[in-house]
Amino acid sequence: MAQINDHFLKLKAGYLFPEIARRVNAFTEANPDAKIIKMGIGDVTEPLPEAIVSAMHGAVDEMANRDTFRGYGPEQGYDFLRNAIVENNYAGMNIDADEIFVSDGSKCDSGNILDIFGHGNKIAITDPVYPVYVDTNVMAGNTGQADESGKYGGLLYIPVTEENEFVPAVPSEPVDLIYLCFPNNPTGTVVGKNVLKKWVDYAKANDAIILFDAAYEAFVTQDDIPRSIFEIEGAHQVAIEFRSFSKNAGFTGTRCGYTVVPKTLMGTTSSGEKTSIHSLWNRRQSTKFNGVSYPIQVGAAAAFSPDGKKQIAELISFYLTNAGLLRAGLESLGMKVYGGINAPYVWLKTPGSLSSWGFFDDLLGKTNLVGTPGSGFGSAGEGYFRLSAFNSRANIEEAVERLKKFFA
Amino acid sequence: MAQINDHFLKLKAGYLFPEIARRVNAFTEANPDAKIIKMGIGDVTEPLPEAIVSAMHGAVDEMANRDTFRGYGPEQGYDFLRNAIVENNYAGMNIDADEIFVSDGSKCDSGNILDIFGHGNKIAITDPVYPVYVDTNVMAGNTGQADESGKYGGLLYIPVTEENEFVPAVPSEPVDLIYLCFPNNPTGTVVGKNVLKKWVDYAKANDAIILFDAAYEAFVTQDDIPRSIFEIEGAHQVAIEFRSFSKNAGFTGTRCGYTVVPKTLMGTTSSGEKTSIHSLWNRRQSTKFNGVSYPIQVGAAAAFSPDGKKQIAELISFYLTNAGLLRAGLESLGMKVYGGINAPYVWLKTPGSLSSWGFFDDLLGKTNLVGTPGSGFGSAGEGYFRLSAFNSRANIEEAVERLKKFFA
Repeated sequence: MAQINDHFLKLKAGYLFPEIARRVNAFTEANPDAKIIKMGIGDVTEPLPEAIVSAMHGAVDEMANRDTFRGYGPEQGYDFLRNAIVENNYAGMNIDADEIFVSDGSKCDSGNILDIFGHGNKIAITDPVYPVYVDTNVMAGNTGQADESGKYGGLLYIPVTEENEFVPAVPSEPVDLIYLCFPNNPTGTVVGKNVLKKWVDYAKANDAIILFDAAYEAFVTQDDIPRSIFEIEGAHQVAIEFRSFSKNAGFTGTRCGYTVVPKTLMGTTSSGEKTSIHSLWNRRQSTKFNGVSYPIQVGAAAAFSPDGKKQIAELISFYLTNAGLLRAGLESLGMKVYGGINAPYVWLKTPGSLSSWGFFDDLLGKTNLVGTPGSGFGSAGEGYFRLSAFNSRANIEEAVERLKKFFA
Repeated sequence: MAQINDHFLKLKAGYLFPEIARRVNAFTEANPDAKIIKMGIGDVTEPLPEAIVSAMHGAVDEMANRDTFRGYGPEQGYDFLRNAIVENNYAGMNIDADEIFVSDGSKCDSGNILDIFGHGNKIAITDPVYPVYVDTNVMAGNTGQADESGKYGGLLYIPVTEENEFVPAVPSEPVDLIYLCFPNNPTGTVVGKNVLKKWVDYAKANDAIILFDAAYEAFVTQDDIPRSIFEIEGAHQVAIEFRSFSKNAGFTGTRCGYTVVPKTLMGTTSSGEKTSIHSLWNRRQSTKFNGVSYPIQVGAAAAFSPDGKKQIAELISFYLTNAGLLRAGLESLGMKVYGGINAPYVWLKTPGSLSSWGFFDDLLGKTNLVGTPGSGFGSAGEGYFRLSAFNSRANIEEAVERLKKFFA
């Protein structure tokens, strides 16, 4: 009798974004003329930069010619891309090209990474948080059941709210795996090196490993804000970093990301021996993954060409200007607004006593704007709301106008 | 203290193909002038069909234009591709488009599928077998340690050798998950519908699930040989099927495959309730995967265009002619040869008392040909050797000449 993985049954019914889609579809059916502006899911809207498009065409042509055709590539990614990543994103950080594992996206990696860890680990996440960290731990059997507020037993939830200025406090108890994401999804906030240093020191003291999600690093505009955990001394002994081409190069539908696993990072076996996390991840990827499509890797590498860098900088600037317009518009209405300076997300307090979903329904009904309820990211997100700056300028300006009428 | 997944430590040191690469590299360094012909790894050599190349260029151009740009796609794949798969590959088999899950490759899916199953299942594999099935079960903790012959405790190994004409016998004991692959990798052999029917009936009687790998179905040339498990009555209640664009459309480096999960397929929870495998896999993919690159899906769909079908038929025919040349050449030398008629692999008995690796070294040293030792696929593969027909015609003809000299 084929037994299923019972832990899946603990998962709450709806993943956040399908639930948003369901409500929007229902509203659209009832109001077919409504001009919906979607600022919910953090999906880019602008086309791929020309340098990337051109490189992908070239790679497709290589695949059309016997002499330049590529079959199976290295599971870890081609050297041309691994080298470009290190040279451009990790210069001076003591990261080697063979510590870069190219993948088809950061979401996959941040889920799959649990394959190499055991089941007795105590897991810490911030709250609110990117739901994939939680759900993949539920699936892996690292949690108990969810309580009424949606919190799973066995996880340590670290609140990040306006009360602590969105700075996650190092726990007073030991944990084994820690998920951190900066610039943060969903709050759009960042922390300084001093905060990350505390976490690195904590991890070192507790033999813990930090899973650092830096998918939004390209949006950092302030010089003193770290873009990588590996800017912090000691991080090479305690951290894995996830990065993506999705939000900077516009790869949400093109698919490419990577994970950085320093060779100095060690985990512990059940008999107490230290073992290389890099070797485990390499074995995992070699066995369960077959590398990223060649034309996509060529496109990703073009993000680091002179033209590619210039075009990506323009894209980032475009989205950050959107975020600034949203922030300014909301602030002019007396709203409490966070994020949007070093991140493409604006995080706001819902007005009055409205719940996150209450505000969602109200906003959708009265302004036809779609955002993301903060409570969908965890119970500490209740009373907050996320707006994504990934949109056309015209839509952002129109959204600000509608918000002004809504709050007038 | 971050505990690792100790089951990884049970894995034998070298995955088969890295070990082959190691020996070939060592030989090439010692013999830099040797003209190696690689017939080891089953990697295609011919360029992507023109219809696919053209479609991919078109899709890249769509990504370059704001109006046609695609961000996140459905995790399950675009309807245009799911529909094309059903219409072309499952006509009359009672498979719906929403039972198709598009992925970045069959290797990934055949490993990831274990995410949705529990840990008490008894697993059956054929021997020899594609190593990924075994290694992913080891990683998931579904096996004990390996013995001297490389067999892992807890797995049921079903030998497929010339003694049983490469037809896996239904076990006399109950098992819960069964891996079957036809046309078979590595032996290149096939079975008739009557054999698959026995397996489907066995699975039904034991509430077991068959994981059917049909990655090589495009090479089936004989009309009475099934291409899909879903040609068998009752399979929709007991089977999952894996398919790939790698070996027919030449996508080994382009990456696209899919998994067919009928909505009628049920697994069992620990409390004995029946639950939908389709729902579990959908949840797994939605949470840990983000869909296949849009230009790649467009390329895969072009495999089903009139031009695409014609060009792929020519590719398949080309590789099968290679396989026929290899077969004929070896048979003319009095060798015992299997496969190569409905599959791109030829499986031969090593001459005399040579072991698989002994023959590998001998062949490499004396003819500079690289094949795959049968024992690398399992202990019942000892004394066999796999040659891949994925090569240029000139290399295949040259290989046959060298084999003739070798055995002369």
